[in-house]
Amino acid sequence: NAEGDAAAGAGKVALCAACHGMDGKSIASIYPNLAGQWAAYLENSLKAYRAGERSGGMSAMMTPQATNLSDEDIAAYYSQQ
Amino acid sequence: NAEGDAAAGAGKVALCAACHGMDGKSIASIYPNLAGQWAAYLENSLKAYRAGERSGGMSAMMTPQATNLSDEDIAAYYSQQ
Repeated sequence: NAEGDAAAGAGKVALCAACHGMDGKSIASIYPNLAGQWAAYLENSLKAYRAGERSGGMSAMMTPQATNLSDEDIAAYYSQQ
Repeated sequence: NAEGDAAAGAGKVALCAACHGMDGKSIASIYPNLAGQWAAYLENSLKAYRAGERSGGMSAMMTPQATNLSDEDIAAYYSQQ
């Protein structure tokens, strides 16, 4: 469900915000801005990390994060920034 | 060189635009918006596809595209939208 629950998602993004910013605008150019990105794309990206389909880059950080979080909620939250 | 040449990049993005839009705003939610994204992140993403570090998702389309294109030019172009 790509709709997710944006309000619930807001409570789960403290870790994400360390790199991607509370408003989805990242703190450095190696991290993607998430603000305004499609919820479906964000959800698919998190699922790809979880499935081990992204290696290299920041995957050593993102794979465990994606495993621990509800991707639908996070996608819904950032897509509304 | 993440600076790239935005003018040169503009001439190379006809294929990209079919999904990501001429202005970097994608035509459907399965494709990420690229407008306003960090040039360094876009460049790293294209290099990851080229290196075979992204599988699943749209990688069957993106890997050959990334192999054929100068990622610095494309990253520079989209980051200025």
